Amino acid sequence: MTQPSGRLYGLGIGPGDPELLTLKAYRILKSVPVIAYPSLESGKVLARAIVADYLSDDKIEIPMPLPFSVERSSQPYYDIAAEKIAVHLSAGQDVAVLCEGDPFLYGSFMYIFNRLSARFPTEVVPGISSTLASAAALGVPITYRNDVLSIMPATLSAEILSDRLAVADAAVIIKLGRHFAKVRDVLKERGLWERALYIERATMPNQRIVPIAEVEPGEVPYWALILIPSQWKGEV
Amino acid sequence: MTQPSGRLYGLGIGPGDPELLTLKAYRILKSVPVIAYPSLESGKVLARAIVADYLSDDKIEIPMPLPFSVERSSQPYYDIAAEKIAVHLSAGQDVAVLCEGDPFLYGSFMYIFNRLSARFPTEVVPGISSTLASAAALGVPITYRNDVLSIMPATLSAEILSDRLAVADAAVIIKLGRHFAKVRDVLKERGLWERALYIERATMPNQRIVPIAEVEPGEVPYWALILIPSQWKGEV
Repeated sequence: MTQPSGRLYGLGIGPGDPELLTLKAYRILKSVPVIAYPSLESGKVLARAIVADYLSDDKIEIPMPLPFSVERSSQPYYDIAAEKIAVHLSAGQDVAVLCEGDPFLYGSFMYIFNRLSARFPTEVVPGISSTLASAAALGVPITYRNDVLSIMPATLSAEILSDRLAVADAAVIIKLGRHFAKVRDVLKERGLWERALYIERATMPNQRIVPIAEVEPGEVPYWALILIPSQWKGEV
Repeated sequence: MTQPSGRLYGLGIGPGDPELLTLKAYRILKSVPVIAYPSLESGKVLARAIVADYLSDDKIEIPMPLPFSVERSSQPYYDIAAEKIAVHLSAGQDVAVLCEGDPFLYGSFMYIFNRLSARFPTEVVPGISSTLASAAALGVPITYRNDVLSIMPATLSAEILSDRLAVADAAVIIKLGRHFAKVRDVLKERGLWERALYIERATMPNQRIVPIAEVEPGEVPYWALILIPSQWKGEV
């Protein structure tokens, strides 16, 4: 008799504050015997740090050495990580892959999902995205009524960013890092600079909110974003 | 000596599944003496129903009779609701306003926020939006890497919807209701119909996922959305 497979969870753990896990993510995190999380090239293991206080000593841990940016050359890293996870699933153990923010919004879980979801029962638990957490931290509504919200990575070219911003009522530009100066120039051209709000590491212990004009382009982390609330800001 | 004010919370309670509250929203919900929630014209009180099992008998409740759609004529309703809340805040009691999904993404909390946040200490707790919950329920990644995601209400004109969809890699069209037929025609014109996924009431007990071609336009609820994953669906 073959053993039934374990279940694969894509577990959204939110933007940084451990209290922003959902009750569901918390329950699953506590119950699974195995967790997996990206251990970036830089040696930072952010996702694990977010839930560190919730982990017991008997948890089996699978650090996944994944490159920070996803490119064709990343495929072998995902193949290896997926196979490590598959060993436990095949043995009947449930595995939760920790995902900062939400598992299906950017991020790296999708590459694990696309390798394993056809082979094993899989469930995705949504998480608070940095966009939502940043608006709450900044204290500014994102979209009213008929507004269109566009979320875009700062890695896009200036031309594409400009085109996309032209038809967005509200916008969030994520993954700023070394792209800040380019984004700044686009926002100034588009007349959006005055409305733009800047935040680093929303809800993390080192969260930082500064007026966007005071941001030093050389010191912007990857985990920074710009929020441009819709033009209806302040509507009553 | 004047009493210190109570704190106003905009409490994101997620899309419907009570387990999708965050640990933080759950803690605040349990601790505040007063809650407020929209009691729609139709008599439905969805937000309260989501957290019903978490409420104790001694909680003071403020149902807010708000019109379903926000228009200029809605202002008196919000004025009245805000003043009812202000009475408790002035008396030193914390008040949590229950917000389906996320408080700052569409929804009605912003109109309370814009009336009270200058007068009372205010904190917004982000919540799982229906967009994130729907992708998880459908089991399909929304955006990879450099994709742009646009979230737009179905209430927009066919022309605007078409223009916005033209520059989105992934899109979510919310608040479908009686606008389904219009959206369907736009998607067909844009060649997006084959990629579009339909879901009603994500994570609620009566969640319903059907192939979009089988949807009966006359029976689409307000709480339905269409998700168009980015063209990189299935990327490895």
